[in-house]
Amino acid sequence: MAKITKINHVAIVVPEIEGALNFWQEALGLHLHHVEDVPSQKSAVAFLPIGESEVELVKPTSDDSGVAKFLADKGPGMHHLCFEVDDLEGMLADLKAKGVRLINETPQVLPGRKMAFIHPKASNGVLVELYQLIKD
Amino acid sequence: MAKITKINHVAIVVPEIEGALNFWQEALGLHLHHVEDVPSQKSAVAFLPIGESEVELVKPTSDDSGVAKFLADKGPGMHHLCFEVDDLEGMLADLKAKGVRLINETPQVLPGRKMAFIHPKASNGVLVELYQLIKD
Repeated sequence: MAKITKINHVAIVVPEIEGALNFWQEALGLHLHHVEDVPSQKSAVAFLPIGESEVELVKPTSDDSGVAKFLADKGPGMHHLCFEVDDLEGMLADLKAKGVRLINETPQVLPGRKMAFIHPKASNGVLVELYQLIKD
Repeated sequence: MAKITKINHVAIVVPEIEGALNFWQEALGLHLHHVEDVPSQKSAVAFLPIGESEVELVKPTSDDSGVAKFLADKGPGMHHLCFEVDDLEGMLADLKAKGVRLINETPQVLPGRKMAFIHPKASNGVLVELYQLIKD
């Protein structure tokens, strides 16, 4: 039975990375691991590991992305909650069998990880991402 | 220097606990530790530990609370992000010295823990809670 092992990250949409780091890195003292351009998500992401999880600051790099629309409609704030799972395909099959509405019925594969989103209508308005690391 | 050690919890506002557990516990497979009435916050809270953190499902128990207003205005969803710190007073003094706007300039003390909120204007729209466990 597939299971969740931890919170992988909490993603926060911000209008620009540098200004956001003034708070999350400088004031709060989180460590900035790196900033990465993620073209597939039309965003730039700052990764700040904390404990076994990460805070991710996500800045849209194109006006036509979901993240850009979120920022335009709601302003900056928490965007999604990502759990790490030990068997993503198994978890998606299980959720589907239970009638849970999914955004991605099959995993999206990115370098080093695969992921899928659950529809927020299924999860109290929370956009939940499921994430499995891919070992080399 | 005070520092953050981990994500303590992510709080999610829900209209009722039982329905929310259908997703978070039954479908997603998170373990329900317990449900607690928190009169000081005018809410009932379901605690679902995952890894070193928790998901907290928060249901308002009064119409005049901040959580009730959040639910009425925005609907269910992520409400706040809580970090555990090793020295809450030190962290608050440090944030204040850096000009970060706080909701609570001194800790609120609850059974087993003390906490304070940072104003979301300071933190990209995210309501950030800081939390320190109190040892007996």
